[in-house]
Amino acid sequence: MRKFFVLFTLIISTCLVAGDNTDKTFIHALYTKTQLNHASYKLLRELTAQYPRRLAGSPGADGAVQWARRTMQQLGFDRVYLQEIKVPHWERGEAEACYVVFPDNHREKLSVLALGRSVPTPGGELLAPLYVAHDVDDIKKADPEAVKGRIVFFNAAFPDTFLQTMHGYGRAVQKRVWGPSEAARKGAVAVIIRSVTTAHDDAPHTGTLVYAGDAPKVPAAALGYLSADRLYEYWKRNKNIKVSLRINSRIFPDKTSYNVIGELTGRKHPEQIIAIGGHLDAWDVGEGAQDDGAGIVHSIGALALLKQAGYQPQNTIRAVCFMNEENGLRGGKAYARIAKEKKEKHIVAIESDAGGFTPRGFGYSGPEAGLKQLNEWLPLFPPFTIQAIRPSGGGADIGPLHKAMSTPVMSLIPDNQRYFDFHHSHKDVFSAVNRRELELGTASVAALLYLIDQYGLNNGVKHSASHP
Amino acid sequence: MRKFFVLFTLIISTCLVAGDNTDKTFIHALYTKTQLNHASYKLLRELTAQYPRRLAGSPGADGAVQWARRTMQQLGFDRVYLQEIKVPHWERGEAEACYVVFPDNHREKLSVLALGRSVPTPGGELLAPLYVAHDVDDIKKADPEAVKGRIVFFNAAFPDTFLQTMHGYGRAVQKRVWGPSEAARKGAVAVIIRSVTTAHDDAPHTGTLVYAGDAPKVPAAALGYLSADRLYEYWKRNKNIKVSLRINSRIFPDKTSYNVIGELTGRKHPEQIIAIGGHLDAWDVGEGAQDDGAGIVHSIGALALLKQAGYQPQNTIRAVCFMNEENGLRGGKAYARIAKEKKEKHIVAIESDAGGFTPRGFGYSGPEAGLKQLNEWLPLFPPFTIQAIRPSGGGADIGPLHKAMSTPVMSLIPDNQRYFDFHHSHKDVFSAVNRRELELGTASVAALLYLIDQYGLNNGVKHSASHP
Repeated sequence: MRKFFVLFTLIISTCLVAGDNTDKTFIHALYTKTQLNHASYKLLRELTAQYPRRLAGSPGADGAVQWARRTMQQLGFDRVYLQEIKVPHWERGEAEACYVVFPDNHREKLSVLALGRSVPTPGGELLAPLYVAHDVDDIKKADPEAVKGRIVFFNAAFPDTFLQTMHGYGRAVQKRVWGPSEAARKGAVAVIIRSVTTAHDDAPHTGTLVYAGDAPKVPAAALGYLSADRLYEYWKRNKNIKVSLRINSRIFPDKTSYNVIGELTGRKHPEQIIAIGGHLDAWDVGEGAQDDGAGIVHSIGALALLKQAGYQPQNTIRAVCFMNEENGLRGGKAYARIAKEKKEKHIVAIESDAGGFTPRGFGYSGPEAGLKQLNEWLPLFPPFTIQAIRPSGGGADIGPLHKAMSTPVMSLIPDNQRYFDFHHSHKDVFSAVNRRELELGTASVAALLYLIDQYGLNNGVKHSASHP
Repeated sequence: MRKFFVLFTLIISTCLVAGDNTDKTFIHALYTKTQLNHASYKLLRELTAQYPRRLAGSPGADGAVQWARRTMQQLGFDRVYLQEIKVPHWERGEAEACYVVFPDNHREKLSVLALGRSVPTPGGELLAPLYVAHDVDDIKKADPEAVKGRIVFFNAAFPDTFLQTMHGYGRAVQKRVWGPSEAARKGAVAVIIRSVTTAHDDAPHTGTLVYAGDAPKVPAAALGYLSADRLYEYWKRNKNIKVSLRINSRIFPDKTSYNVIGELTGRKHPEQIIAIGGHLDAWDVGEGAQDDGAGIVHSIGALALLKQAGYQPQNTIRAVCFMNEENGLRGGKAYARIAKEKKEKHIVAIESDAGGFTPRGFGYSGPEAGLKQLNEWLPLFPPFTIQAIRPSGGGADIGPLHKAMSTPVMSLIPDNQRYFDFHHSHKDVFSAVNRRELELGTASVAALLYLIDQYGLNNGVKHSASHP
């Protein structure tokens, strides 16, 4: 470890006299450093081992808040503080159950997870015949008489035709988010969906639903892909099958929780902020390793890496661990409100919430000049790391800030082919994260923070192009 | 399935009237198609399930040869044939064993795999004290008196500082390939190495060694990364520990085997060949899924995809399933020899032997004009697929052809961060391959074959730029 530090210092020293290649050398050294010290990977192991279940309002979330604060303090960040918020408090309760019930009363178990925010099934078990719909558009056209009293089964699969899974997700997730209320409007008593996933196995994938104000709240759950296949096959053969669903969820009063913020204070413009964040909460299955432990350790890890390199930022660089992204977005909303109240000046807000896979690029939403600037920096990144800037970026947690203050927003774009294999399921565990890939993400974020800190984003906010 | 075909035909039809965007549309349709039909993934499942162990000379290799021939015949390729070769026949025999033996004769088991081609330990168990070296350079400088009668333990880890693992591998593999003979020259009785791997677990990774003609042949094996850690710690504490090694390998006379070749015959220039290949043989642990089942199904799958798209090539497009890449390269050598004898005209030979991960680019070695041409095609590939052409390409199996006939050679470059976690170990199994990533590789290869078939490679071989 000691020899790594010497090597690193040597590289940094070299870069200070290297002239034209200074930025490139500095950035390359950041990448190399992450592959040697595995700092983010170690943080992720710690977070996922100690607080695998971190849904807002849970003891795990409380523990993770303290972990994030303690971690950033121990790393010697200049300022570490909490932003108090109120979060929804939903609990799954005893494990849910779902069976296909044949006309002869034989039952076959299906692999199932209640959707987040779902109400429980009334009186324990709910038993009803099926109405099979493809997706939300399909149920909107349905005859209420045919749906009434039935469990609606949204059977649409993840659309494989989108080469980037994020785009497929945008389409596929509609049935999960809006399906329950759309079905309820037609008289459905519950909803089950084929899990929103790229994996063809039997792990169910949860995620939030949104109950519309004008529709009855019906219980809703997701089936594993193979269970959905089976159910659909049974239904095709015999329309008289029923489904038994039992969801034991409970909704409690809102609880106090926190965004956790750590900063490296800017030397010239401490009032100007470059923010990078992910969300600390995670679904109550798996360990929230890819979603979004990776984003948390990308954020904390990037600041730690810059600090360890002896870099002293011009502007304040801030790591934000948002709370409650998964089922309420209260953290993101509070962050934007407070930033507005305090008249904080964000140069940019960046989000990492797409997993710890090999970084491919960044997305950007903001003034055109910033996009041009970002593209000019592409040659500074090592081969086969950041190779593209997409003219659309941001994320759920920084969306409210973008909206409230027109802050330019960016997102880290990791390779996303595997993300939805794990997302929101019990498979999203530490061992599913590759050490090298995760660390390349941290280095990419650190390099971006460095460049923006050095040169701004051509977006009207003043900056000083003095080198470290 | 039927509806996919209709969609595909529609896309292809559209592309035929789309003018400027014809190539781009056709290529995009190839990518989409692979994500819908999963043809390569299904082939890989079949190959790895039926013939998981395919080391040259084994019954699995024989079965795989028949599988490849049958598969390409069933896919309706125009010509499918075998190239007979003689391959070395090495067998691991009964599982090897390695123990650290403490001065009080207590033994502790280490995780181990004999290296390919290793001779057995004489008389069953070999028990000797240790000489610890870092790598080959280190043993070259050693005092023979200090090495004599000992087991040399090469302890160097995979160098993490290379951001592309292929480069780290080039460095790390030296101790595996040349270490045994270098140590034997100094009087070592056996060699054990820290496995050549990016994973920090206890799976040992095998791979071939090369015995130099002028050195005694000593048995050699690889330890799991964690076993190597343990052994090194014990040795640091007590230099009097010994190591017990038992390798039960056997070397048999050479056996008959085959390269398996399938072709889509060129309509205008059947005599001009565009070759794509991988190797059919695999180490005798795991299932050879990433190494190199992926390359085999990329190759067969790409031809099948073009055929299914109704594409009729100008030149002959050839899929080559090489035999014996892992421990002899007899297939690659024979292919080059036969090509030279027959005066075959290869426009290019492409190799896929770096796993079934998300494709990032291609490597190219050949005339400069070809490199320029390839770079001009980059915008035709969908975002976040092929993003770079590296000016160095090829592969083990097409190396002899490149050397013999100056054939331009190329390699598919998948993201390589995870490759050496699996490579040559029992972890290289079908379930470690992601369906979407694998299929993107097949589409990338098919797109490249299409472009080269259409436009040549500016390398002096005539071509006709007529569209499908």
